[in-house]
Amino acid sequence: MANHTLEGNRVETIPRQLVSQRALIGAVEGTLADFLACQIAALDAVDPALGGFARTARDLVMAGGKRIRPTFAYWGWRGVAGSAEPVEQVLPALGALELMHTFALVHDDLMDGSATRRGRPTAHRLFAAHHGTRFGDSAAILVGDLCLVWADQLLARTPLSPSVLLEVRGRYDRMRIEAIAGQYLDVLGETDPRSWSVERALLVARHKTASYTVQWPLGFGLALAGGDSRLEEAFRTYGLAVGEAFQLRDDLLGVYGDPAVTGKPAADDLRTGKPTTLMMLAQQMASEAQLAELAAPIAPGASVASVASISSEDGATTGLAGAVNPAEGSGELNPYARRARLIAETGAPARVEEMIRARVDEGVAALADAPIRPDARAALTELATTATQRPA
Amino acid sequence: MANHTLEGNRVETIPRQLVSQRALIGAVEGTLADFLACQIAALDAVDPALGGFARTARDLVMAGGKRIRPTFAYWGWRGVAGSAEPVEQVLPALGALELMHTFALVHDDLMDGSATRRGRPTAHRLFAAHHGTRFGDSAAILVGDLCLVWADQLLARTPLSPSVLLEVRGRYDRMRIEAIAGQYLDVLGETDPRSWSVERALLVARHKTASYTVQWPLGFGLALAGGDSRLEEAFRTYGLAVGEAFQLRDDLLGVYGDPAVTGKPAADDLRTGKPTTLMMLAQQMASEAQLAELAAPIAPGASVASVASISSEDGATTGLAGAVNPAEGSGELNPYARRARLIAETGAPARVEEMIRARVDEGVAALADAPIRPDARAALTELATTATQRPA
Repeated sequence: MANHTLEGNRVETIPRQLVSQRALIGAVEGTLADFLACQIAALDAVDPALGGFARTARDLVMAGGKRIRPTFAYWGWRGVAGSAEPVEQVLPALGALELMHTFALVHDDLMDGSATRRGRPTAHRLFAAHHGTRFGDSAAILVGDLCLVWADQLLARTPLSPSVLLEVRGRYDRMRIEAIAGQYLDVLGETDPRSWSVERALLVARHKTASYTVQWPLGFGLALAGGDSRLEEAFRTYGLAVGEAFQLRDDLLGVYGDPAVTGKPAADDLRTGKPTTLMMLAQQMASEAQLAELAAPIAPGASVASVASISSEDGATTGLAGAVNPAEGSGELNPYARRARLIAETGAPARVEEMIRARVDEGVAALADAPIRPDARAALTELATTATQRPA
Repeated sequence: MANHTLEGNRVETIPRQLVSQRALIGAVEGTLADFLACQIAALDAVDPALGGFARTARDLVMAGGKRIRPTFAYWGWRGVAGSAEPVEQVLPALGALELMHTFALVHDDLMDGSATRRGRPTAHRLFAAHHGTRFGDSAAILVGDLCLVWADQLLARTPLSPSVLLEVRGRYDRMRIEAIAGQYLDVLGETDPRSWSVERALLVARHKTASYTVQWPLGFGLALAGGDSRLEEAFRTYGLAVGEAFQLRDDLLGVYGDPAVTGKPAADDLRTGKPTTLMMLAQQMASEAQLAELAAPIAPGASVASVASISSEDGATTGLAGAVNPAEGSGELNPYARRARLIAETGAPARVEEMIRARVDEGVAALADAPIRPDARAALTELATTATQRPA
């Protein structure tokens, strides 16, 4: 892809962000597709079964997604890099972030027992369809491992000086450690949600998501540009604030998201009992009667079909007509929809919306006086909202 | 550890190999211990639960093992590096191989459902003891992931020039891809052992073990020394031959090994139905009656207690007196011991022993005229035998 489609003169006069964002994602995906085609051919030559394994990995990588980490890394880089610097020189590094993210999603979905991702079966389900659950789980571990090593291989192809790449790799390693540590706290929290707290949920959000999704990608991009110590603090503040807001939106979508839009199963967080900030706030804000109801487990196997008809605002309104599941006939809400409404009634979703707004404001303010290129400031200001007000 | 204990003058006059091997392992383990202490402190500071997670990872890394990959990498390096080159400059890279190996073992043990490793509970069993099987499996995936990222961080600390490290990292990446691909073929084979063959079992042995255990570590070491194109071919031949012999010995130990010595569960390959070269040869060499018996599944839950009393030579001798399991009272062999004896009776173990000998001879011959330092040639010649005649 020629540089001008991403960075050309037109961007000064037309709605630049949309064009640029699409072109950026297209360029990253093109880099990924080329790289993966080479890897598939090499494994296919060893054994056709390995070719099939590699193609499944490719399909998981290429199945879409928001490509949010390459986007933040791009603007972290562009915030400092001059307009004459071609984006091609950082595309392998941006693609590596997405390969690493596929690793994280595949392993996370296996740990959570999730059935769908991006509207398709998750990796362990895909493999299980061929040779059963045990094989599915093993192959999912391996396909995640493969993506993680591929990420390193693609990162190594970034045509920058060894000293720049060394710094980039150092940040990349710390990002990976934080993502793994955050995920460990996440699965630990699920073993005993009642011992969890708002504070611990926010700690997980900070380590599992904020640092991994926004803060480190921005810093990674900054390092790709050779670094700029004057921007470190602003990017750190912005990254953690917007990253936490991103996770808080995820918490809301994990209960109230529409599976047709999120591509994930309905009410996934209710199903797994994940002690998110939303859930912990609901416990904290609940009346005694509500708390007793929240503490009761949801019967395994209960239908989640009608959860999407409950809105996070239902606690503050009376608009529950659509929440009755006709499939269940009795005019009763199913257990997941009841739980979603109960959480809304505690006021926790409204509180989470406030927390998101406050964090977006904090992030945007951190950039206001930072020594950053104006187009990058504008793009990151817009991303602070689009990344945290998304429906999926 | 001072350099002279590893490389000092004394090595010319006393049984050098033993002293050097012990000192080498001590030095690698010291490097690992120092590195891991830093990582644990950093994670502990974030959250004590993360400190505990990291300490479990450290205990898995430090639980012993043969340290065979650092050993081959050391001799690959020393085969070219002058005596004046201090070993300290490659210790982080050697330690990285062992961290990567812990990643592979932890994930493999989870996939195989193995209960013990190095005589201790496997990672998923350790974690499951705290919060159940589901948490155990998730935490084992994460502890493996953590070790893989740690390996990259330790490798990055190797004080060599960026161009040397770039080449080292390239080989390291290819080694990891081969190990993952080999493990995928391994789990695929277990889904339908009857469709497997001697040829496919040897393909798995080549990719999962030979390249990962011997060939790449040697080449990795050679790259640490700045490379030497005249040695590449000799190391490749030696690596694949000795590496396959290593796996063939593993196949024998997987049926006939003494768990008190191997640290692994008795008859592990019989339990998982792994289609090893040994098993495939047994099928190929079996009479029709033997084949029918081999095809019958072993009842799940059958005791494996007395398998160690069966020797791989029992097929050729009549020395079966010790193979009766007194615990089962009837004078009957238990199902695993019966299966082990049946395999021995096909003649497959004796054939595998021949294959090991032929490969060791091929590997040693490849070094005979190679332009390699004499001490490295002597050490690798000795390792070809000790690594493939081991009891564990």
